[in-house]
Amino acid sequence: MLTEKIIDQLNTENKRIISRIISKVEEGNSGSVEILKMLHSKTGKAYRIGITGPPGAGKSTLTNQLTKLYRKEGKTVGIIAVDPTSPFTGGALLGDRVRMNEIGNDRGVFIRSMASRGSLGGLSKKSIDAADVLDAAGYDFIIFETVGVGQSELDIAKAADTTVVVLVPESGDSIQAMKAGLMEIADFFVLNKSDRPGADSALMSLQTILMLRDHDEKSWLPQILKTVAQENKGIEEVAAEIERHKKYLNESNLLLEKRKRNVNVRVQEIVDKTIITEIWNNERLGYLNEKSGQIISGEISPYQMAEEILNNYKKNITLNE
Amino acid sequence: MLTEKIIDQLNTENKRIISRIISKVEEGNSGSVEILKMLHSKTGKAYRIGITGPPGAGKSTLTNQLTKLYRKEGKTVGIIAVDPTSPFTGGALLGDRVRMNEIGNDRGVFIRSMASRGSLGGLSKKSIDAADVLDAAGYDFIIFETVGVGQSELDIAKAADTTVVVLVPESGDSIQAMKAGLMEIADFFVLNKSDRPGADSALMSLQTILMLRDHDEKSWLPQILKTVAQENKGIEEVAAEIERHKKYLNESNLLLEKRKRNVNVRVQEIVDKTIITEIWNNERLGYLNEKSGQIISGEISPYQMAEEILNNYKKNITLNE
Repeated sequence: MLTEKIIDQLNTENKRIISRIISKVEEGNSGSVEILKMLHSKTGKAYRIGITGPPGAGKSTLTNQLTKLYRKEGKTVGIIAVDPTSPFTGGALLGDRVRMNEIGNDRGVFIRSMASRGSLGGLSKKSIDAADVLDAAGYDFIIFETVGVGQSELDIAKAADTTVVVLVPESGDSIQAMKAGLMEIADFFVLNKSDRPGADSALMSLQTILMLRDHDEKSWLPQILKTVAQENKGIEEVAAEIERHKKYLNESNLLLEKRKRNVNVRVQEIVDKTIITEIWNNERLGYLNEKSGQIISGEISPYQMAEEILNNYKKNITLNE
Repeated sequence: MLTEKIIDQLNTENKRIISRIISKVEEGNSGSVEILKMLHSKTGKAYRIGITGPPGAGKSTLTNQLTKLYRKEGKTVGIIAVDPTSPFTGGALLGDRVRMNEIGNDRGVFIRSMASRGSLGGLSKKSIDAADVLDAAGYDFIIFETVGVGQSELDIAKAADTTVVVLVPESGDSIQAMKAGLMEIADFFVLNKSDRPGADSALMSLQTILMLRDHDEKSWLPQILKTVAQENKGIEEVAAEIERHKKYLNESNLLLEKRKRNVNVRVQEIVDKTIITEIWNNERLGYLNEKSGQIISGEISPYQMAEEILNNYKKNITLNE
């Protein structure tokens, strides 16, 4: 009852309620599930943009500038910044502070930072849940900003309608590092800091890589746009390319298809996570722990142990019914 | 019956049988599980070394040199090279060829390359299964060589008894990129290509980062070793540090503890993978696919859908019993 009341108050004018609901949702308990179920019918209106790339490419700056542009057009923006926080660098924290000063106080902008540390597995689930809250609140655009390192971050970027991969002239070896992962999810590329030496050759090698790609049936060819986000150069072109991609998706009916694919992945993740949590209760974890010495010594094989635990789980479902 | 016969022939003298069994195991069907169960009692003797780091750090070269050193000492070596193959670069392929020429023909060396492309989730499971085959065959050392990008690759490196993280003077921003992930799994670091400019300052910043780390109760402090693997410099020191770590683990009884922890993770992965495969049969995947339009349109929430599928799975277990 209380929850329903709160959800009725969910709109872009009420940032405190949004914050509160996202926090509730992040708890990941049965209450969270109820909230997400109730929210769901209000979702689907926001356009979701993923901005990813190697660390230091200028993703936050680009996100900030793009947000300011959208605000000028009267659009509201929700940002989910996913950040594999490190105990070693304060970079992310500093960036957050700059951001809050620049756009954080704008009534039409909501920013939520999520740290991946210690919760890698559940991060894409949490981010997409939070995006649903922002979507239901009525934001026109939702931007997922994630570092393109690791599967989980890529999963988040892929969950967007349009995915932008940001690179810099120096990220030549980052391209190597990320390899297929980043290349394949990009709907277009932004070569940021393109006033730096090496920009033209970076552009050329990027183009070469794109040409080497398997050309599938899809008629959309990812472009490469040059920006200097720090100086607000090229941002309008980025917004225009997002718009062009959106239009392409709508006209080819691919938006629905993409969203269906994403929702399928999401349901599968929820199912998987739920059942895994059910299986690994303290009792079974304790049992495994007890037996691990016998596995090491060669008496029981890991596969035999797994079978035993699965059978135990299944038997208990039967008994509960 | 046939399988048992093959397993009896499993030893380092018989590379064709090893290859065949690994391929069988990779199929991941019930036959594979049977083989792994039978093998298991023969495992536990090999010492497992993980070598990881950013692309281009020289992991293969280091692995090759270390292997040659072990061979001189009369030890046998099995190598599992995990490679996030890219459609864009031929680097890995070239490296493989060099390697085969250098050590591939040695009777006491077995090399298996595994590509992560398209099978990211199952890669750590597959690698560890293959390591069990090599362990049962009787190799003294098993080296997991993986690129330190992505969770799956890190999982493999962590499954080793001693994990070596290889960096180069230029990988300053790689450190940023990998952040906590690589730092936390290292039992020691190798600064390769340490004859390059910037080696000393790289060493210093690495030391600074290590000092900033939370010091936990464990008395083992990761050292940083300098090598020029290409010129075979510093390799003996690497082997000595592996030996020192092995001795430390044995004397502190931490080897058993570490292996228990790893085997727990492994059993959990097997259980999770098995049940997820069971749930997502064609029927349920088809049903989800059919309903995804209604999820997009807001009629059904993803959480409701997940619940329905889970209930269906559980009900069918009951009926089957």
